[in-house]
Amino acid sequence: MLDKSAEQILDRIQPQIATLPASGIIEVVNYGRKYDDLIKLYVGEGNKPTPDFINDAAVAALRDGRTFYTWQRGLPPLRDALGSYLTNLYDTPVDRERIFVTVGGMQAVVQTMQMLVGDGANCVVPTPVWPNIYHAVQMVGGTSTKVPLELGNDGWRLDVDKLLDAVGPDTRSIYINSPGNPTGWVMSRDDMIRVRDFARERGIWIVSDEVYGRFTYDDRGNLATAPSFLQIMEPDERLIVINTFSKNWAMSGWRIGWLVAPVALGQTYESLIQYNTSGVAEFLQHGALAAVRDGEPFIAQVLEQSRKGREIVCRRFAEFSRVRFAPPAGAFYLFFAVEGETDSRQLALRIIDECHVGLAPGSAFGPGGEAYVRLCFATSPDHLEDGIDRLAKVLG
Amino acid sequence: MLDKSAEQILDRIQPQIATLPASGIIEVVNYGRKYDDLIKLYVGEGNKPTPDFINDAAVAALRDGRTFYTWQRGLPPLRDALGSYLTNLYDTPVDRERIFVTVGGMQAVVQTMQMLVGDGANCVVPTPVWPNIYHAVQMVGGTSTKVPLELGNDGWRLDVDKLLDAVGPDTRSIYINSPGNPTGWVMSRDDMIRVRDFARERGIWIVSDEVYGRFTYDDRGNLATAPSFLQIMEPDERLIVINTFSKNWAMSGWRIGWLVAPVALGQTYESLIQYNTSGVAEFLQHGALAAVRDGEPFIAQVLEQSRKGREIVCRRFAEFSRVRFAPPAGAFYLFFAVEGETDSRQLALRIIDECHVGLAPGSAFGPGGEAYVRLCFATSPDHLEDGIDRLAKVLG
Repeated sequence: MLDKSAEQILDRIQPQIATLPASGIIEVVNYGRKYDDLIKLYVGEGNKPTPDFINDAAVAALRDGRTFYTWQRGLPPLRDALGSYLTNLYDTPVDRERIFVTVGGMQAVVQTMQMLVGDGANCVVPTPVWPNIYHAVQMVGGTSTKVPLELGNDGWRLDVDKLLDAVGPDTRSIYINSPGNPTGWVMSRDDMIRVRDFARERGIWIVSDEVYGRFTYDDRGNLATAPSFLQIMEPDERLIVINTFSKNWAMSGWRIGWLVAPVALGQTYESLIQYNTSGVAEFLQHGALAAVRDGEPFIAQVLEQSRKGREIVCRRFAEFSRVRFAPPAGAFYLFFAVEGETDSRQLALRIIDECHVGLAPGSAFGPGGEAYVRLCFATSPDHLEDGIDRLAKVLG
Repeated sequence: MLDKSAEQILDRIQPQIATLPASGIIEVVNYGRKYDDLIKLYVGEGNKPTPDFINDAAVAALRDGRTFYTWQRGLPPLRDALGSYLTNLYDTPVDRERIFVTVGGMQAVVQTMQMLVGDGANCVVPTPVWPNIYHAVQMVGGTSTKVPLELGNDGWRLDVDKLLDAVGPDTRSIYINSPGNPTGWVMSRDDMIRVRDFARERGIWIVSDEVYGRFTYDDRGNLATAPSFLQIMEPDERLIVINTFSKNWAMSGWRIGWLVAPVALGQTYESLIQYNTSGVAEFLQHGALAAVRDGEPFIAQVLEQSRKGREIVCRRFAEFSRVRFAPPAGAFYLFFAVEGETDSRQLALRIIDECHVGLAPGSAFGPGGEAYVRLCFATSPDHLEDGIDRLAKVLG
């Protein structure tokens, strides 16, 4: 409800910004702030803060006076370390010249969308997906075509034919988030090859959001690693890979991410970083460097907690007869529907009030998600069990 | 010189991004990295790191586990503190609901330009100016009309008639950076009122970049505070004020800034922050809070150093007979021309090689700056004197 003066102000801004929707996730986060005892399972982070070995490195750099303007592409040793990290993880060479450090995965997405779909071009994206993706497309002036995933008997799946059929004359990129937030869908290597071959033929960019790449579970619920587009494409092809420090290293509040791009885009991304954020705080990058270099034992704990969280939610939610879900193949969310509940936003608000548990409404994630609710299980087992105990009041 | 494959890649990105120029400042920064003993006077920061009282607050928050997603508009106590700070500084009420914390002043500019001039609208901006301003306009798909300042006998001045004449049918905003980087020009209160009245009549937005507001010198070289558009406009008018923690508090490497906007834009900026960066690291914001709350004694030192730096450069540069400059009325740069030197980029590169001093070429700052070179004097007197001693080799 805007008064006249507000309307007069808003009538002189860009329409795509004036109509930019509020995040349906942030709405419930803000709504939940009134309860001190809220169990927060609504955003994609656990309940453990960043570990000390990462903090220590950032603090040492801060105390050492690393508080000046810095390298726009990222600190060279950090880019080296990320190159080695990806090379080892996917057993495929990733040169440090392809790597750019950004303010969160979010800026990696925004800069890529500015480059690819600003000024009216189109991005095709499977949904439900993290809403910031298609909101960022709108923000930079592009359009998005949403292709809904479907929940079948063997979990969420993407009809690749439908995806490729959605590519039109103005489509500049296909955005693939696998493992997917919020569904846990993981694209198979065969499907990736189909998308790659189509994109090659049409000169389309693939933007591959591999933030949850290490949070993947096999048929028996054991940990695995999802396939990466890095493994099936050449270094100079039209591929941008988005990643973040948020999930693997419990650094969501640090706002550091990175992307992998063709070397030919080096100056382009350097300029995009300069004119968007002027880089990432150097002392924080020293923390990120410690994370990549020394973080494997910690990541093993994070992954194990997620594996266990998945086990817990699958077991406990099976007892809720009104609830329908597929055990997720990847990421760390349970995306479930509740019989008789069609308005997930209302349901999420009611669950906050009645259970003091924060969940994210599926309506926030675009077509196909309206009837679902998202719970983040990447948290400690006790915390999770407490949350589920409380949820029984509404779901049981 | 791109090879064929690079061209093939670049031909499938947005033209305004493919043609985004590299920063002419960053070019010399990168060029200068080869000299360990370089005296760096090319960017807008001093040689002192962030003071301990600010670092301590950030470290305490980090150790306290403030490493999760946070308030998108900024921590409420920080917004409160900034509201009080501006209210006191300008003796005019600034409500905390008008304040938004951003990733550097740069994101404050980008988000504002996305809102005002994305999708082809126009921004009128006096030059020479920090090039990131008009590069950001290009990046978001807008156009800029540059109105050159002129160097007269009493310093740099703006012909306000020329500024207003440059406003066309597609112009959505006028960008005023006063005190100005790199010229040191300060807009008078009378000129501000003329611009305000014109903008009111036409429904044009004023974007006022007041980053150097406290770095202002009267006719005798004593410290003063520049007038602010906050003092002459109502809270609900079309005014966005850009600011940063970088300069006053020696926090350039932290990447924290803020903006002041009409309350009616609250949800708009919250969404812009969410979809651009998802906010500023909470533990860093605690450092920023300490800066605003307890920083006045430190700011007094910073301002005094800048006043003294100005005195030094004005005295020493007067001895260089080939050099022409006006004592700057504000900011902390000497913007000078050298007789017989018309290519400031080549001159800056030569000064790096021959003097081991980093200066910024005026050509980087747009029309009117081509023949000038920028030196940052907001640094310790010894450091500055050493730099000027070295410059004598080329300028003397």
